[in-house]
Amino acid sequence: MVRILGIDPGSRKTGYGLIDLEGGSARYVASGVVRIPDAALPERLKLIFDAISQITEQYAPTEMAIENVFMAKSAGSALKLGQARGAAIVAGTHAGLGVSEYEARKVKQAVVGTGAADKLQVQHMVRILLNLPAAPQEDAADALAVALCHMHTRESLTRGAGKLEGRFRRGRLTI
Amino acid sequence: MVRILGIDPGSRKTGYGLIDLEGGSARYVASGVVRIPDAALPERLKLIFDAISQITEQYAPTEMAIENVFMAKSAGSALKLGQARGAAIVAGTHAGLGVSEYEARKVKQAVVGTGAADKLQVQHMVRILLNLPAAPQEDAADALAVALCHMHTRESLTRGAGKLEGRFRRGRLTI
Repeated sequence: MVRILGIDPGSRKTGYGLIDLEGGSARYVASGVVRIPDAALPERLKLIFDAISQITEQYAPTEMAIENVFMAKSAGSALKLGQARGAAIVAGTHAGLGVSEYEARKVKQAVVGTGAADKLQVQHMVRILLNLPAAPQEDAADALAVALCHMHTRESLTRGAGKLEGRFRRGRLTI
Repeated sequence: MVRILGIDPGSRKTGYGLIDLEGGSARYVASGVVRIPDAALPERLKLIFDAISQITEQYAPTEMAIENVFMAKSAGSALKLGQARGAAIVAGTHAGLGVSEYEARKVKQAVVGTGAADKLQVQHMVRILLNLPAAPQEDAADALAVALCHMHTRESLTRGAGKLEGRFRRGRLTI
């Protein structure tokens, strides 16, 4: 079984989302947001690492995908984001997962069809593609989107052009 | 016993240095540099995390200190440095260590006596203060310097003004 953990890293909120790849379709497993309280940096990074470690223990994903950070506004915010991202990535590698990175544009392209999509469109399409009763919270939706992007990419690599034939079969994202 | 692990984080090289606090003096234990080869980012961060985890297992430090990054030249380099720093910090917290952060200026002030010291001065003073036969490599010296800064700071906090009396007693940095 392939179970993908998607991560949308952030220094204040880190989104996560898990999907299963079942018969070429994506099935929603779980998603949520790790909110990081005000505390000294080492404690905040520990919280990200521990939360993702707990998620990998609870849900036993087989692969991890993480969004590549767009260029930050300043060196200071890039440093903060980098630290959060580093903590998240090593939580995945420490759990034995292969970790793949995807540019934000590529994630939007895979899920919405355009790299310039906004957050509302991503939330909307994640809801449609995973047959959810409501749109997930913004960071959770971004995490599910990067998981869907990874599913699409890994299957494209293994199956080649045949992937297009099966898309949206049975109302679910298929590959 | 107090054994301090100092870390000078970097995305290409991460320096480490260990000192013991013995009878108010610093005693050199070990130091070195983790060189990070060209590889995908998750593998490089895993290498930093695993290397520091191995050092904490081998030397069993009781506390960790890490240099705060000066403002990077660009958002891109700040992101890279942040990721390496995040991986290093969570390696420490995962090993159960309290992690303290020190500004580079404060580290230089503690070891050389001026926040504007250059790397050669730091290497020189680390060699003197720890009675080493030769100056350690640059990144290892920076890591030992942040460990010495932490030793000095933690003792200042607990002993107050009395710290000055014992400095440089017996030719070693005392506090």
